[in-house]
Amino acid sequence: MTEPRKLYVGLDVGGTSVKVGLFLQDGTLVGKGSVPTPPIVDEAGYSAVTNGIGQVLAEADATTAEVLGIGLAIPCPVPADGIIRMQANIQIDAPGLEAALHAFCPQAAVKFVNDANAAAMGELWTGAAKGRTSLVFVTIGTGVGGGVVIDGKVVAGAFGAGGEIGHLRMNPNEERACGCGGKGHLEQYASATGVVSNYLAECEARGVEPIELTGPSDSKDVFQACREGDEVALAAMRTMADYLGRALSLVANVVDPELFLLGGGASASADVYLETLVERYRACAINVNADTPIEVASLGNDAGIYGAAYVALQAAEA
Amino acid sequence: MTEPRKLYVGLDVGGTSVKVGLFLQDGTLVGKGSVPTPPIVDEAGYSAVTNGIGQVLAEADATTAEVLGIGLAIPCPVPADGIIRMQANIQIDAPGLEAALHAFCPQAAVKFVNDANAAAMGELWTGAAKGRTSLVFVTIGTGVGGGVVIDGKVVAGAFGAGGEIGHLRMNPNEERACGCGGKGHLEQYASATGVVSNYLAECEARGVEPIELTGPSDSKDVFQACREGDEVALAAMRTMADYLGRALSLVANVVDPELFLLGGGASASADVYLETLVERYRACAINVNADTPIEVASLGNDAGIYGAAYVALQAAEA
Repeated sequence: MTEPRKLYVGLDVGGTSVKVGLFLQDGTLVGKGSVPTPPIVDEAGYSAVTNGIGQVLAEADATTAEVLGIGLAIPCPVPADGIIRMQANIQIDAPGLEAALHAFCPQAAVKFVNDANAAAMGELWTGAAKGRTSLVFVTIGTGVGGGVVIDGKVVAGAFGAGGEIGHLRMNPNEERACGCGGKGHLEQYASATGVVSNYLAECEARGVEPIELTGPSDSKDVFQACREGDEVALAAMRTMADYLGRALSLVANVVDPELFLLGGGASASADVYLETLVERYRACAINVNADTPIEVASLGNDAGIYGAAYVALQAAEA
Repeated sequence: MTEPRKLYVGLDVGGTSVKVGLFLQDGTLVGKGSVPTPPIVDEAGYSAVTNGIGQVLAEADATTAEVLGIGLAIPCPVPADGIIRMQANIQIDAPGLEAALHAFCPQAAVKFVNDANAAAMGELWTGAAKGRTSLVFVTIGTGVGGGVVIDGKVVAGAFGAGGEIGHLRMNPNEERACGCGGKGHLEQYASATGVVSNYLAECEARGVEPIELTGPSDSKDVFQACREGDEVALAAMRTMADYLGRALSLVANVVDPELFLLGGGASASADVYLETLVERYRACAINVNADTPIEVASLGNDAGIYGAAYVALQAAEA
């Protein structure tokens, strides 16, 4: 008879799919799957999620009794007390889902975590921040998100707003509104959408016809133009790096992490902007932390499942 | 025979004096004293400090064997690893002093902590943040300092810059330099010195003769003019509140504390600016943390000795 394994499940609950990862306690991924995101508000929704977990367990020859923790990365604020008071773009009844997960895996600690915070924890566990005790993760996609890790733990925040870096109010003179209703927020200048918007503004200011863009949040075309030496695109990139560099200097003066990691879709184009970003960060930082490294994250889209599982492992061992 | 007490010493090492506090583990102050700050770089300097502790112990009928922790609040960055790499305006050989303290109180854990971080911890232990697990403390004096506490612990920072709120780069267009050499930092607008400078700038812009000021960092006169309805002084106060309110909103989007506390000399004039500050904070904050309380700290100049002792207690119990 073999010793039962200690297994941890990480779920990344997104708008279109729930990704499932099954992990050993050392961070080894032993199974992976996904199910389309149901409205997670009734038994049918809960079952869709537990069935998704069940399938990954079956493929790994694992039993529900071996699962000691289930972490759920979700796209809304999760305060330090774990009680979710607001929702973003998914329908989820957190207490109902938690009860269903407890019934499905009775040994498991169940823990919710904000998705960007989960990604930060994933990078800490097995990714580009492995071996560190602190980091700030910045995800650059349609918006800008963030995760702050101090002393090996997520800073969830009293109201779930820990690491809400995209909504740092960088420019009090901005007239245009951010998606959240505020004005002059970092994500207006430094998200994929922001880069496109910087570019279109530069084109208008210079009276230049823009290149053809795939979509309003597709910064890839702008970054490709940068690679080809397009001065207008480069100016848009510099605006992004300017805002993001100063924002990271602000973050550094609050929590002073060991390193910054960049993730999200637009981190794939870091070859275009990383050098300028580091230079802008240094110009804004104070002496003691001017050399904090800024690097690209390594787990890509899997960071969420890794981090959710790791948060569940911490909860199970607490 | 009575049980030996568990005692903790908090030292607040300032430019002119070393304050000494002796505490029970529940935060009760049982003795207090101070000695002029020597150059703490040789045996004579170390002895001056240990003699100061010895005197407070003697007055409280306590022995060095009862001291389980000695914390030292110092005015320079103290990184998470405790190794001090730079100094501010005091001369201190930290490893030498640590060795002398270990020799003096062999049972005691010795711990260094940045002074603003210590004040934050003092407020958490027995002050205005008692019972909380997170807070951000802002000290408003000649400069602006800060202390970030998450999960009951100081965020020292990888390079000792945790809570360096005075040097948040708020205004990238500022031409004037901050004391640290940077430009557009919070403390240029929101310290006592900053309030006076805001006031003089308003006077010049309006062609108004300034009131008589006691000194370049004495904001008291400006705040008194505010109480008397002086429109120019009120404009200077609003500039302070504008910058500080936005800065707190930035901090809230990084660590999202349960509350903000204001300390330092200019917190005595909070009656003049607190309402405007809260209003400006709310206008800049995102929805989830727009109601984070902003209050005045309660321990005054003793916050440092309380917090230093508390940090030592945490180290002793770790």
